[in-house]
Amino acid sequence: MIKVGIIGSTGYAGGELVRILTGHKDAEIVWYGSRSYVDKKYAEVYQNMFQIVDAKCMDDNMDELARRADVIFTATPQGLCASLVNEDILSGTKIVDLSADFRIKDVSVYEKWYGIEHKSPQYIEEAVYGLCEINREEVKKARLVANPGCYTTCSILTAYPLAKEGIIDMSTLIVDAKSGTSGAGRGAKLPNLFCEVNENMKAYGVASHRHTPEIEEQLGYASGEKVVINFTPHLVPMNRGILATEYATLKEKVSYGDVKAIYDKYYKDEKFVRVLEKDVLPETKWVEGSNYVDINFKIDPRTNRIIMMGAIDNLVKGAAGQAVQNMNLMFGLDEAEGLNLVPMFP
Amino acid sequence: MIKVGIIGSTGYAGGELVRILTGHKDAEIVWYGSRSYVDKKYAEVYQNMFQIVDAKCMDDNMDELARRADVIFTATPQGLCASLVNEDILSGTKIVDLSADFRIKDVSVYEKWYGIEHKSPQYIEEAVYGLCEINREEVKKARLVANPGCYTTCSILTAYPLAKEGIIDMSTLIVDAKSGTSGAGRGAKLPNLFCEVNENMKAYGVASHRHTPEIEEQLGYASGEKVVINFTPHLVPMNRGILATEYATLKEKVSYGDVKAIYDKYYKDEKFVRVLEKDVLPETKWVEGSNYVDINFKIDPRTNRIIMMGAIDNLVKGAAGQAVQNMNLMFGLDEAEGLNLVPMFP
Amino acid sequence: MIKVGIIGSTGYAGGELVRILTGHKDAEIVWYGSRSYVDKKYAEVYQNMFQIVDAKCMDDNMDELARRADVIFTATPQGLCASLVNEDILSGTKIVDLSADFRIKDVSVYEKWYGIEHKSPQYIEEAVYGLCEINREEVKKARLVANPGCYTTCSILTAYPLAKEGIIDMSTLIVDAKSGTSGAGRGAKLPNLFCEVNENMKAYGVASHRHTPEIEEQLGYASGEKVVINFTPHLVPMNRGILATEYATLKEKVSYGDVKAIYDKYYKDEKFVRVLEKDVLPETKWVEGSNYVDINFKIDPRTNRIIMMGAIDNLVKGAAGQAVQNMNLMFGLDEAEGLNLVPMFP
Amino acid sequence: MIKVGIIGSTGYAGGELVRILTGHKDAEIVWYGSRSYVDKKYAEVYQNMFQIVDAKCMDDNMDELARRADVIFTATPQGLCASLVNEDILSGTKIVDLSADFRIKDVSVYEKWYGIEHKSPQYIEEAVYGLCEINREEVKKARLVANPGCYTTCSILTAYPLAKEGIIDMSTLIVDAKSGTSGAGRGAKLPNLFCEVNENMKAYGVASHRHTPEIEEQLGYASGEKVVINFTPHLVPMNRGILATEYATLKEKVSYGDVKAIYDKYYKDEKFVRVLEKDVLPETKWVEGSNYVDINFKIDPRTNRIIMMGAIDNLVKGAAGQAVQNMNLMFGLDEAEGLNLVPMFP
Repeated sequence: MIKVGIIGSTGYAGGELVRILTGHKDAEIVWYGSRSYVDKKYAEVYQNMFQIVDAKCMDDNMDELARRADVIFTATPQGLCASLVNEDILSGTKIVDLSADFRIKDVSVYEKWYGIEHKSPQYIEEAVYGLCEINREEVKKARLVANPGCYTTCSILTAYPLAKEGIIDMSTLIVDAKSGTSGAGRGAKLPNLFCEVNENMKAYGVASHRHTPEIEEQLGYASGEKVVINFTPHLVPMNRGILATEYATLKEKVSYGDVKAIYDKYYKDEKFVRVLEKDVLPETKWVEGSNYVDINFKIDPRTNRIIMMGAIDNLVKGAAGQAVQNMNLMFGLDEAEGLNLVPMFP
Repeated sequence: MIKVGIIGSTGYAGGELVRILTGHKDAEIVWYGSRSYVDKKYAEVYQNMFQIVDAKCMDDNMDELARRADVIFTATPQGLCASLVNEDILSGTKIVDLSADFRIKDVSVYEKWYGIEHKSPQYIEEAVYGLCEINREEVKKARLVANPGCYTTCSILTAYPLAKEGIIDMSTLIVDAKSGTSGAGRGAKLPNLFCEVNENMKAYGVASHRHTPEIEEQLGYASGEKVVINFTPHLVPMNRGILATEYATLKEKVSYGDVKAIYDKYYKDEKFVRVLEKDVLPETKWVEGSNYVDINFKIDPRTNRIIMMGAIDNLVKGAAGQAVQNMNLMFGLDEAEGLNLVPMFP
Repeated sequence: MIKVGIIGSTGYAGGELVRILTGHKDAEIVWYGSRSYVDKKYAEVYQNMFQIVDAKCMDDNMDELARRADVIFTATPQGLCASLVNEDILSGTKIVDLSADFRIKDVSVYEKWYGIEHKSPQYIEEAVYGLCEINREEVKKARLVANPGCYTTCSILTAYPLAKEGIIDMSTLIVDAKSGTSGAGRGAKLPNLFCEVNENMKAYGVASHRHTPEIEEQLGYASGEKVVINFTPHLVPMNRGILATEYATLKEKVSYGDVKAIYDKYYKDEKFVRVLEKDVLPETKWVEGSNYVDINFKIDPRTNRIIMMGAIDNLVKGAAGQAVQNMNLMFGLDEAEGLNLVPMFP
Repeated sequence: MIKVGIIGSTGYAGGELVRILTGHKDAEIVWYGSRSYVDKKYAEVYQNMFQIVDAKCMDDNMDELARRADVIFTATPQGLCASLVNEDILSGTKIVDLSADFRIKDVSVYEKWYGIEHKSPQYIEEAVYGLCEINREEVKKARLVANPGCYTTCSILTAYPLAKEGIIDMSTLIVDAKSGTSGAGRGAKLPNLFCEVNENMKAYGVASHRHTPEIEEQLGYASGEKVVINFTPHLVPMNRGILATEYATLKEKVSYGDVKAIYDKYYKDEKFVRVLEKDVLPETKWVEGSNYVDINFKIDPRTNRIIMMGAIDNLVKGAAGQAVQNMNLMFGLDEAEGLNLVPMFP
């Protein structure tokens, strides 16, 4: 039984980790960290867990946690994981960091976009970017995994095969993404009130959202060139779900079959990536509650562009589900253990 | 492996049966019945099932189905199950009927409230009302189970212990219930369009809803007297969830502890009934996607009434989940098999 | 031109006052009070007012306000208006208080339910309860009007004619009310976050909500007896709207026509009360954005109860609209000036 | 008093025409056309109009209508207006066609994208494209106005000044648009059911939506060159509102001030176009129920692109409001009469 500690277990991503791990046959949570609710019963914070989780919330004692846990998930704000990690801890436990601290290889890029100093740059190189479908073998050997962001997971996987195969002009790539409100976290902020979000739609972080460099870096590795994109996130009046609509100019004339073959090349055996049938477009509801990424595309001969679309549940494949998928890989388990979550509809 | 046939597998309750049974280790679906989508791939009707269910929809051939299946779920409009069932079928297979056909013991009451003639009244007496927490032993021996309605499951379980123990005046019972829109089914009807339901709230079926006699009959058995109630359903702009708020006059002065003890007497060992802690009120979101009923109450000394509240997911405990719970009992399996569904939040 | 000052102009009710008064031909707002946003442009707080309102938010200077304004609306938390009002102010200006401070005639009841000391009990008797349809003549002469609460407006008007005519047993009255989330205000609180409210339904304040004594007092005046009721509010995932479902036992056998005649007796000439046609049930969406109360009822001969239903927009007839209606009466204007708001659908 | 006839008055756009015209001081509706509800009271179809509109729905008798009405609004499916219009009618009345029949000047483009034969191509040249802010003078003289589509109104006005001034490379223009569900009409179709739309987000009509050529044609006029774009509409779980996010490469280096000056040049005196202040991004809720278009932009020096955003209420500026604005111009009235609708928030 793998002993799991969670730092930040009462945020939405933390809550989803608990939901998923509750159904994982080889893992048990031994530490429900939550600085805001220390000593409060976890089920009083998340009433859905009543009679399922009996534990109390605990403080963020990383040293103690490292002794007790085989793996620590840090579902915390940027900077926390980097400020806590050290050799002692990493020699005693594995870490899956759901924050951005170890996602970006160029520390100056991280510091510029996040506006904070990186406290443990020495671990950046070692950290594996935990997009399982792309870095599976590295994840298996990692002791520190940087779990990708929600927007980035969706945006990267949707474009990855085409970037990798070089059939799109990367300088033309535009990602227009739409997210449910759980992506904004559980903080009590006015813009996230029901009446402000419901019956409303807006863009935010235009040309400045922090997931931009993460997408650029990963698609840069895939395409073998420096990638600079426009990424525009939008807030949608729904709880869960990210839909990414991506535009790029095709380098040469390709058919539907050509592109489908490229997607199949990379994703045919990927359990959690579903390339949909022709003309079936991804909808966030079809993946809700599950670890799936649904992907499809449309070629527009009029403009010589391809429109790629991807949908995920931001809390599952975009956060907690992918974190568990990484954990499974790191411990040599079946990659899908605990993640056989059938999407819930409606 | 129990072979399961579903008639009406493409309605919302049918879809939920498929979702739940997909995770059931002792059952497999062998027949996806759907008169509207014969020969269409099931996953094209419910895209969430892409790469999970490979089967095609089939017609409603009850005889053939009885040969192939160990149990048939009929998730169909009123009247269909009663028109199809016969000795041949019942001797070959078990039936869990999600329609109202066999819920009401008095056929004249059924015919009056539903406005149709009952085609198989001879099976009404045999049929067991499948509210597992109340009729568990009968269900185990049944070959025909009448799966309770969504509103009724919630309404009955919320009041049952107090009716049974005789501490409330049954003639004063009022049930004010609120339901998400999936309860209205997947039919393409104007009142169920997004723009008609969203940002809207209304009562309907006031003093005439068909779940009324079902609640009355069952609470009549519990209290040992004829029960006549007001039941008012309301449509709420959400997909899933029923909240029942019930009012009754207390026969005598009781304390919080007295009433809590009564609830505990009946539900302490019931896995799927959660009597919440003092002052924690049920919310539909805390049971979403799960088979739980969350219940609590408040005594009002000013009016000498007790206000009871119950919450369920109408598609799970209110339909498919309870149907699977019944199946588990009928086949001697662990009652919770396939139903260890952790509520999803948010 | 009536000069209007608003204290609390940046709450949801305050914002609605601004929206309505912007279209009022005999009134102009001269003071946008908002302690939280002093010196900020009003249109930066409510971007819908961009290019419509050019003013900045001002502090809550009641004395200065009294000099500048002919009428002050206090859309503030309980206690504030009572702490500010005095003879100087009341001799210089009229006040429409949207808080609860002057709604309840028995100061001990107020202090018990609200848990605060009343700072100006000497004005309670003078204050007129501003339910225009009931106290029209008194409002016309008032200098201090207590604008009714949102739940209470809906609950009282729905039952008033039957209470007044004595055809229902007041001791059996139960009000089960459902409200959109704007009723909870614009404070940044966790329970009002989008993800906590959306896809969720719950009761709250059961047997303890502060609008209870207000309903009891007013229906007590109507029926000529002491009234004690159960009032249960519920939170609904929508922005606006209150639906009240009310239950009472009929004192004697009455027909639909009898009851309809009673409603018509009181409301036939009331512009803002619409008693719907037989079997048409109120829906909150049909009154959204307007000052209407939609009412209907159903007699249940089985239980000898009558079920009354009423729907309002909580921010209009339940707050700002009614406040303007009161202002119109106080200043001898057409009662409907500024309130010819056609409900918006969908 | 201008006598108005509406064909298609019971669709969502038709209903919005009625709502707006009810508050128009120089117009009265004399014909509530609705083939589906002939002889039914209009207020029974739209209960919000109870006691406001007393008329019954009438059939689509264009000849009779032309005699009785000074202007006819056709809020009908494609093809109907073109099939009914003739010289007799146009000599007796003016027409504002809310369908696409006369929007596109090249009849072969219309027939290709809409898949139907145009029945009155002889009127296409005469018809004025009723985007008031661009074609104001032509609209004033028109007897047949083609009211623009909802997506197109928003998409065109958002990019128009930059296209006109030639600062963006039109071949790079991409429009990613998001719409509330009322844009899908009031037809009882499964994909528009509450449970299918709520908690869901999807693209549709990718690279094939019929508003594409309309945007291309108009922006082609503005830029003086042939324009071919990608336009991707998305369905959002809200009733009203369109948000267009548009991307284009800048032809040369420009500053925020340069671009702001261009927008101001075209829109400074436009009552219904609000170019927001720096860094304030459009949100659909801020224009809900009003005739406003809220616009802003962001320059991204990293990619040398400009991201333009526009928000409208699809039923007002995107349909009925703009139709009334056109009517006002055609009859020499104040352009804003009936349209001083303050956006409703929340």
